[in-house]
Amino acid sequence: MQLLDIIIVLCRPAESGNVGAVCRAMKNMGLSRLRIVAPEAPLIEEQIRARAVHAGDVWEQAEHFATLQEAVADCPLVIGTTRRRGKKRKNLSMTPEEVAEFCFSRPGPAALVFGNERTGLDADEIALCNLASHIPVDEAFPSLNLSHAVQIYTYVLHRYFTSHELKDIPGTWKPVSQDEIERLVQTITNSLASIGFYKQAGRDLQERFFRDLFARAGITREEQMYLEGIFKKMSKLAEMNGSAYSEQSS
Amino acid sequence: MQLLDIIIVLCRPAESGNVGAVCRAMKNMGLSRLRIVAPEAPLIEEQIRARAVHAGDVWEQAEHFATLQEAVADCPLVIGTTRRRGKKRKNLSMTPEEVAEFCFSRPGPAALVFGNERTGLDADEIALCNLASHIPVDEAFPSLNLSHAVQIYTYVLHRYFTSHELKDIPGTWKPVSQDEIERLVQTITNSLASIGFYKQAGRDLQERFFRDLFARAGITREEQMYLEGIFKKMSKLAEMNGSAYSEQSS
Repeated sequence: MQLLDIIIVLCRPAESGNVGAVCRAMKNMGLSRLRIVAPEAPLIEEQIRARAVHAGDVWEQAEHFATLQEAVADCPLVIGTTRRRGKKRKNLSMTPEEVAEFCFSRPGPAALVFGNERTGLDADEIALCNLASHIPVDEAFPSLNLSHAVQIYTYVLHRYFTSHELKDIPGTWKPVSQDEIERLVQTITNSLASIGFYKQAGRDLQERFFRDLFARAGITREEQMYLEGIFKKMSKLAEMNGSAYSEQSS
Repeated sequence: MQLLDIIIVLCRPAESGNVGAVCRAMKNMGLSRLRIVAPEAPLIEEQIRARAVHAGDVWEQAEHFATLQEAVADCPLVIGTTRRRGKKRKNLSMTPEEVAEFCFSRPGPAALVFGNERTGLDADEIALCNLASHIPVDEAFPSLNLSHAVQIYTYVLHRYFTSHELKDIPGTWKPVSQDEIERLVQTITNSLASIGFYKQAGRDLQERFFRDLFARAGITREEQMYLEGIFKKMSKLAEMNGSAYSEQSS
């Protein structure tokens, strides 16, 4: 993908100054696609423009969404930035350099998601991301200002994308969107549910696993159809065989 | 050197918020030595602390100077950050990654100098730097916010220094300070002047050339004495030989 394929998504931003500084940090490095999800406080035009300086166009063209899910629906790949690690967090967390390398080698677009200034991304927001990324910091004071975190990512992305020759990505690799991945995952887990797969809880975790796996792999529509076919056929066969398969559980 | 050997110098900062954000950008990445030269407007404690958040200690320990020359007098190496290139600018300009690599492999301390928010470093300030460095940017809007520029350098330095094993630098390499380099350069050019070297103008440029060369090489006191000896002897010999040498010019 190219730099312009990377969409910066701000979840619940609270400070207008930060939003303006993000616009500047993006444009300084050749990015321009900004999406804003449910600001925590009203965004004040004047404060945004004062900090955006000559990046007012990034703000004017920003898209606004009520939920993160809607903001990333059309993105094949969603990367969540977080410094915290925990039970509900992704295990795999890339550095900014790894994000740049990963994005560079696949088709776009990709969403790079940043959380609220105080809280970062919450568990539900992270669950909507296919990959996690963190900025290596000094542990004495690990909390970066939002726009400075965006600046580090945009700098690293700009450096990587402008110093590497864009490979001729064959036009046949067109990863499907989050929406389509979600449909595929539902088809799979519905099929599994129909044969009594989920005796205990666990469907949620499995759906997230499949979703992230497919997004990271950048599966195409053809592959999506193929997978749907497999699981539909599987559940039909199970049905024909009566109760034989329903004994199995996760 | 180590991360703590890198001193961030702000020349004529005008915005208190930026100074606070610089403190945070430093501490997030394990730096703590800040020097402030002749603020353009009075710095407002409250605004600085609001943006520094948990990096108030960096601000408390900051050192204040009336001139850049005084601020870097004890530094063997002074690196000026600038995006402009021109006649009076240094020809060699390193990227942040090159700065990190160069600093890592030599003894500290080193000063990393940032200019005023509007104007950047002026020609006189750049002349006091031994090396220039620039942040690669998108040309559509190349002007970075001050604290965001500091953030990029501190991030790149932190990444480099924490991901490379510190080499065992022999304790014998102790580069002399800017003050001592200046004394050496004066000795050299005084010697050359005494034999009529500067028929036309050009002493200023030559002094700068020597100063940057010696700083980049990190010359030791022994080498300084040795060089001073050479030029003193040279001028004495020239004196004894009468007017023979005074015909030569630059």
